Amino acid sequence: MMSLGDNGSVQTQTKVLSQDSWTQVSCPCCVSKQVEPLVLIQLSNNVQPVTKRWLISLIEASKRHGGAALLAHPGEDECGDVIMVSAPRCTFLKATEDLGLCKKYHNEDMVAFSYHDRDNFSNVDDMQEFLTLAERQYIVKNELDSLQAQKKQRIPGVLEAPGVLEAWENICQKLVRAGVIKDIFPLHNQQRLNDLGRSWYYKKQIWGQPLDAIQSYFGSTVAFYFSFLDFYTWALVPPAFLGLVLTFLLPGGGGVVKEQAVEGVMEEDDDGPSVSGHMVQAVFSMLWSTLFIELWKRRSSSLSHRWGTLNLAERFAGPRPGFHGTLGLNPETGRLEPLFPEWQRQLRVGLVSLPLVGLFLGLVVLGMTGFYHGEALVQGFHQDSGSLFSGTLLYLPSMAHIVYTNMLGNVYHSVAMQLTEWENHREESSFQNHHTTKVLLFTFFNNFAVLFHIAFYKQDLPLLRKRLASMLIGNQLMNQCTEVVVPFIVDRYLSAPHKKEQEDDLEVDKLRAQRSLPPFPGLFAEYIELLLQFGYLSLFSCVYPLTAVLLLLNNITEIRGDAYKICKLFRKPFSAPVSNMGVWQTAFEVLGFVSVMSNCWLLLLSPRVQEFCLEGGISGKNIILVAILVEHVLILVKMILAFMIPDEPDWVRIKREQIEFNSMQALGQQKL
Amino acid sequence: MMSLGDNGSVQTQTKVLSQDSWTQVSCPCCVSKQVEPLVLIQLSNNVQPVTKRWLISLIEASKRHGGAALLAHPGEDECGDVIMVSAPRCTFLKATEDLGLCKKYHNEDMVAFSYHDRDNFSNVDDMQEFLTLAERQYIVKNELDSLQAQKKQRIPGVLEAPGVLEAWENICQKLVRAGVIKDIFPLHNQQRLNDLGRSWYYKKQIWGQPLDAIQSYFGSTVAFYFSFLDFYTWALVPPAFLGLVLTFLLPGGGGVVKEQAVEGVMEEDDDGPSVSGHMVQAVFSMLWSTLFIELWKRRSSSLSHRWGTLNLAERFAGPRPGFHGTLGLNPETGRLEPLFPEWQRQLRVGLVSLPLVGLFLGLVVLGMTGFYHGEALVQGFHQDSGSLFSGTLLYLPSMAHIVYTNMLGNVYHSVAMQLTEWENHREESSFQNHHTTKVLLFTFFNNFAVLFHIAFYKQDLPLLRKRLASMLIGNQLMNQCTEVVVPFIVDRYLSAPHKKEQEDDLEVDKLRAQRSLPPFPGLFAEYIELLLQFGYLSLFSCVYPLTAVLLLLNNITEIRGDAYKICKLFRKPFSAPVSNMGVWQTAFEVLGFVSVMSNCWLLLLSPRVQEFCLEGGISGKNIILVAILVEHVLILVKMILAFMIPDEPDWVRIKREQIEFNSMQALGQQKL
Repeated sequence: MMSLGDNGSVQTQTKVLSQDSWTQVSCPCCVSKQVEPLVLIQLSNNVQPVTKRWLISLIEASKRHGGAALLAHPGEDECGDVIMVSAPRCTFLKATEDLGLCKKYHNEDMVAFSYHDRDNFSNVDDMQEFLTLAERQYIVKNELDSLQAQKKQRIPGVLEAPGVLEAWENICQKLVRAGVIKDIFPLHNQQRLNDLGRSWYYKKQIWGQPLDAIQSYFGSTVAFYFSFLDFYTWALVPPAFLGLVLTFLLPGGGGVVKEQAVEGVMEEDDDGPSVSGHMVQAVFSMLWSTLFIELWKRRSSSLSHRWGTLNLAERFAGPRPGFHGTLGLNPETGRLEPLFPEWQRQLRVGLVSLPLVGLFLGLVVLGMTGFYHGEALVQGFHQDSGSLFSGTLLYLPSMAHIVYTNMLGNVYHSVAMQLTEWENHREESSFQNHHTTKVLLFTFFNNFAVLFHIAFYKQDLPLLRKRLASMLIGNQLMNQCTEVVVPFIVDRYLSAPHKKEQEDDLEVDKLRAQRSLPPFPGLFAEYIELLLQFGYLSLFSCVYPLTAVLLLLNNITEIRGDAYKICKLFRKPFSAPVSNMGVWQTAFEVLGFVSVMSNCWLLLLSPRVQEFCLEGGISGKNIILVAILVEHVLILVKMILAFMIPDEPDWVRIKREQIEFNSMQALGQQKL
Repeated sequence: MMSLGDNGSVQTQTKVLSQDSWTQVSCPCCVSKQVEPLVLIQLSNNVQPVTKRWLISLIEASKRHGGAALLAHPGEDECGDVIMVSAPRCTFLKATEDLGLCKKYHNEDMVAFSYHDRDNFSNVDDMQEFLTLAERQYIVKNELDSLQAQKKQRIPGVLEAPGVLEAWENICQKLVRAGVIKDIFPLHNQQRLNDLGRSWYYKKQIWGQPLDAIQSYFGSTVAFYFSFLDFYTWALVPPAFLGLVLTFLLPGGGGVVKEQAVEGVMEEDDDGPSVSGHMVQAVFSMLWSTLFIELWKRRSSSLSHRWGTLNLAERFAGPRPGFHGTLGLNPETGRLEPLFPEWQRQLRVGLVSLPLVGLFLGLVVLGMTGFYHGEALVQGFHQDSGSLFSGTLLYLPSMAHIVYTNMLGNVYHSVAMQLTEWENHREESSFQNHHTTKVLLFTFFNNFAVLFHIAFYKQDLPLLRKRLASMLIGNQLMNQCTEVVVPFIVDRYLSAPHKKEQEDDLEVDKLRAQRSLPPFPGLFAEYIELLLQFGYLSLFSCVYPLTAVLLLLNNITEIRGDAYKICKLFRKPFSAPVSNMGVWQTAFEVLGFVSVMSNCWLLLLSPRVQEFCLEGGISGKNIILVAILVEHVLILVKMILAFMIPDEPDWVRIKREQIEFNSMQALGQQKL
């Protein structure tokens, strides 16, 4: 990430914190002695001083003059390759209103912040108390992102072809494309980070995380992930308990299966849990997944109220930087901005994206079919010839399949990103949700295709059980290694000298340390891991009841591992205020429904059920019909339950309706 | 409805329209020369003048003094048994804001009405233009309903036990219970009613109804019903066309079936449509029902925008009259009113109402099983003995079943009403939705239990086909008779002298005519008829493809019949402004999903499919699995389609978001 040339400039950065070099503000309420550096703009090391001066002047200029109304600091001198950015109080407060954040009113209620009414909010004079660090940094980034060229102009100091800004073009995006800006990232606050770490991953108790502190430092996106991880881990206790009971206490082969799985003795085994155990599992799985997701929704909405993100106004803010369209008046807000008709986006999603995603899922299936076909072919050939050549040939199908899957995955990831860009979403959250959905579908399919193939096509329960156990244990061991152990060792021992220096050195060096860290890769991998876990658990757990126990053990370490990772191993990420987990919540909900189907199916396949039917003289056709009936009834019960449990606690609903009522009242009082 | 004693007072009512007897208003903007009588309060004929005077003074008193701020007219004299009620301009305008109605702004936009900003709305000086007749009447009723006793007091002139009003007790409800008020109903405007009739049911074209005029005269509840009926009838054209094609053009026994059904030749018949015809029907049914309901949602929301009901504020208005709870401050609006915790209502619904409804549905099934069992028993007995006694005994099971079903229905209706009252819903719409859902479930179950029994348990397709045809034709003929022909004859010929008198007589006599009409029974019966139709069509149409054709023919006459009925045969109903069909829309949507399941099942049963499988050598087990797969895929496609088609047209969404944005802006401008 950092070229060698950077080191020279970093070493002279002792002046970084000289408060005089910050933009001088004229607004009396914004004057403060100490300006906190929030965001760092990393310029390329061959940037011209004239370009840097121009960029700083843009950052400092008022909104009326097309600027971002922020505070800038040129680093050690005009030739340096960094700009540090902060914001004055007025910019913070106006942005807080625009984002629709709720803040504490003088009567302790959470109320949508209004700049006009600012004096009635608590802590409004101290930005460090009023806004969280994550919010302050997000606001600075947001203001930088909103910089637009007022007219067609040349970027000063950039002579090559990409140096011409069109009118209304996004300036930051353009500067990144033109190679002027290398990166923009928020700065860590080492003191607070160390405090957070002490109460988070270094503490003695197993349970409990400092969620509010996480939200304050890393923002609600990250805090929602850790809250969910926490909630999910707790929720695993009942199925783990049930799994233990079914395996060790009830009559049936569960105990045997478990030992086999652990010892790796994978011999053919027709024993599964008993019929009643199976039934209990299927019904329990339905109830548990419904209650889990409904209770999480309630928890999520109360967290959202606590963190002031219940009433976000993303729809009424400006469009995301990558959005393009014909310039016009936004019919809702009356502001001049690019417009793109909704129906056109819908058509693009429905007629292009959906079929293309379907095509790729088809290609996954094709690959799997090809693999099985090839394997059968090669094995036949090997049995016929038995030579060394045919023996090595045995590895060919799986090799080819791995290569194929990897290539397909890579192509798909870039296609998914381009499709989502092309769908031209106006809001960042909508963009993220559509992109996540695409990648998620593919990843999920890729991971579960084999299990589904075994369960539904081969209908081979013992094989499914073995495969599930090996996948669970294998995946978890690998995840724990790559996610925690390796980075920990690298961080602790291999980069130790680098660390030592940092402890008792100047802030400048801490800054250098941050620039050398890799950027945070986002929470996609973390969420998909949880979703796959939840999939193993809810889709197939009735063939391997100990799944929940393994997952529970895994997640207790996962919490600390993830916490350590985000605090120590990466740059601080920007984090938009969000009111829920977005599309991930839907994904867990959908999986809950699919799990009812798969459990009924597995129930049908179970050898015990088949035996039971034979003994009772029930025909194979009728038992299928009973299974369909059970499935439909369970899904109906699940839907009724989900409908009956309100998605938000009463007190959150009342707060939300209060806000609605107040704005209705306000509208009535006002002449348009 | 009207006792003989009434006639005496009615005959002297020529003074009813003397404008001087109306309440004199002091507010300068409310003074008008001509007051339009809107609502009639029918008192019992032995009411004391002191009671009537007290009631009139309450109606006239300002809100500050615990009155309704309306205009009252005592009829011919103080002893008469009617009070006519109207409202002054200020009351209308304030109520319009409280209801959250949208009205035309000076720039032609529909904007939520604000009393503060009233001068910028069109027609605000002419209440007859500004509010529709239905809205004016609803507002008067609403204000009457909101009359509450300020303190514990005795009703003047009522000496018996029920004559004591508790503090905060609803006065109108109390007066009805105490026998003082016999009825409250809105008055027809004969001139406008005749105009409406001419453009509605007397006109020559088959298609098209004057929906805006209906909305204006009868209110949005009624207008939504007729809009839906219209939309639904149009939507029947494609399935009717498909039915004709499948029956007469495709190879297969469809044509034969049709002739048999019509001619009543009900012999055993294994011929159904061909396999491909069946498949086409199942897929078409899925697509059609999805598109139908999604497009209706769009139409519904654009009608709602047109009629100004997009932004109703029922939640923030006072509770419905029957609502009770402990007196407290409403946390949302800050007003003093009875409160009842939401979770308690949810518990009552979930733990009492739901199981009780389930119990009654179980009793329906029990009754049906008993009927079949009894029939088998009696037939066995008759075959054994063959006597005259056993011959008459053959009728016993169906007689018993009819009596049982009717008794069960009556008990259920009263249980459903009491349960819904006990659930204690705060809003009228919520009350209506819960009550409708209960009755609807039962009625639907009662009607379809036999068909489901034949289709799923007996699995006898030819019987299903016959039963469906006879039910369709029988039901329709009976409906047309009872709904249109009989009332028309009664109205035209039997009550002719009464009519004649009315045409050229005073308004007083028209008033008398209205008092003698029965009250409007509500739209439940009309909606349930459409829902049952839709059920026959979507659940079982693939066994009898001509269903849609019959329904289409039926509905064209239904539109005119219903229109005639509501205009001529009943008193004018009160009609609350609503923004959609409420729970009926959900019922149609749910039926769409059930229809996918039932179509797949019927496909599976179809003898052609069975033959096809035998020929192709596919086992019975596998064909069931294929059918399950098809069902799940169709449901998935249906859900994706429903998700992809936006529920409201873009322009409505923009208007709605404009309102939201404006109220957010207004909130920001205001200090709390």
